[in-house]
Amino acid sequence: MSADTGAAITAAEVEEKLLRGPFHQWLGLKVTSVGDGEIEIKATWRPEWVVNAEHGYVHGGILATLVDLTADWALVSKTGRGVPTVDLRVDYHRAAMQGDLTCRGKVVKFGGQISVAEAQILSEDGKLLASGRGVYMTATPK
Amino acid sequence: MSADTGAAITAAEVEEKLLRGPFHQWLGLKVTSVGDGEIEIKATWRPEWVVNAEHGYVHGGILATLVDLTADWALVSKTGRGVPTVDLRVDYHRAAMQGDLTCRGKVVKFGGQISVAEAQILSEDGKLLASGRGVYMTATPK
Amino acid sequence: MSADTGAAITAAEVEEKLLRGPFHQWLGLKVTSVGDGEIEIKATWRPEWVVNAEHGYVHGGILATLVDLTADWALVSKTGRGVPTVDLRVDYHRAAMQGDLTCRGKVVKFGGQISVAEAQILSEDGKLLASGRGVYMTATPK
Amino acid sequence: MSADTGAAITAAEVEEKLLRGPFHQWLGLKVTSVGDGEIEIKATWRPEWVVNAEHGYVHGGILATLVDLTADWALVSKTGRGVPTVDLRVDYHRAAMQGDLTCRGKVVKFGGQISVAEAQILSEDGKLLASGRGVYMTATPK
Repeated sequence: MSADTGAAITAAEVEEKLLRGPFHQWLGLKVTSVGDGEIEIKATWRPEWVVNAEHGYVHGGILATLVDLTADWALVSKTGRGVPTVDLRVDYHRAAMQGDLTCRGKVVKFGGQISVAEAQILSEDGKLLASGRGVYMTATPK
Repeated sequence: MSADTGAAITAAEVEEKLLRGPFHQWLGLKVTSVGDGEIEIKATWRPEWVVNAEHGYVHGGILATLVDLTADWALVSKTGRGVPTVDLRVDYHRAAMQGDLTCRGKVVKFGGQISVAEAQILSEDGKLLASGRGVYMTATPK
Repeated sequence: MSADTGAAITAAEVEEKLLRGPFHQWLGLKVTSVGDGEIEIKATWRPEWVVNAEHGYVHGGILATLVDLTADWALVSKTGRGVPTVDLRVDYHRAAMQGDLTCRGKVVKFGGQISVAEAQILSEDGKLLASGRGVYMTATPK
Repeated sequence: MSADTGAAITAAEVEEKLLRGPFHQWLGLKVTSVGDGEIEIKATWRPEWVVNAEHGYVHGGILATLVDLTADWALVSKTGRGVPTVDLRVDYHRAAMQGDLTCRGKVVKFGGQISVAEAQILSEDGKLLASGRGVYMTATPK
């Protein structure tokens, strides 16, 4: 872990880990920055995301997925890896239309057993579409 | 609405409406039963769902998506359509491995403005993988 | 724990433990039944609970408190004690007016580290006023 | 509303409204500042708050209550009044011991029907004890 070694994990290193997951590849994720308890990720719009063909809204499940993974990987400067989600809570603020999404994550409280982190999902023109929090299992695996 | 006309909506009618959404098609959804404030939906596993290539776990975002849409469509006997999600809360109980998923939804409280519904996601061998709730906007659109 | 010894904990024993807490005394709690992963508790209305003097509504914080403690003590047949709350989620269904409250709790998933339990809060005439869930730390203390 | 008249509501005016509620009086609330979509409230410790007589921990229900009312009244610069809570979610970060509590609230998204606001509860020495969010009904009453 960066906290122990003094060598911070880079965005490229986090992206390489993140993209080992097939669903993360499908979401077209790119890690644009990683800080201490913070992360920014971009997700690349695809037509399968749409829930409502008439209006073109993105499915809330895609936004929930992005809140979950962004909050989870906001912990990476402390965990060095993705960790199991205990629970997830998402608030929907505006309909998400066609376009790539910017996802900003931040640690609320890091703990040795359980941690809380939050995320915001923004449209290409910077509007807050959804935000939320997850509880993550940050105990070291045995 | 069934409540108004006395003619209950059928599983085939709900599936036809549900599958207008491209993301619902991608999830391979099949509506197996619809009751008064209740629904059962099956989702068809696909390799893109995996978050962890080594262990084959399904991404929590897929489970969150299924909780959201199942709780939403549990309201269909009263709403006749999918409705906007206000917020979503998901608890993860066990890792989901390769296999189709059974999704059971139930209305907790139907209201003229706001409704609450819940859903359970089960593995092929009947284990509870995730469960949760959403708040939905059930006001009639103007 | 009852599960280990075969001797189930009784409602009177749970009430005795519960009422060691000053806030539980203030809430006028009575344990009316305890089962395997289930509990029923009554709370005694008091005028300080009111948030809106004009209409006499009970404060949502009282209902949240009852959801938390009822879900927590629904675990008592497995834990033998009250356990720390990791997080709490409460849905408000109807305004609670003057009157004692019935609180029903049930375990959703018991785990060695983390457990999920749910609760319903009912009025004297059996209407569902609020319901929700908590995540609890059920790891054995060191 | 301040937004309409240009005259911002003051902390003293908000405190006067807040303290019409008997439960708010019991919690010893004082409004220390009110801004645009922001509020700070102090709550005065009392011995009835304790859940665990041995260790002196404050009951999670008290912290949940403070998250709810602080997020609710963070909306006051836009609503001019307390509004009904749709749902509430609270994360517990550290045990709260004897002492007054500082509660900071902030609007996440203000909407004409539904709004989201968040709150943090801090100890006398500035440690984050609990935090969370609520959804509030901000439609104008008929």
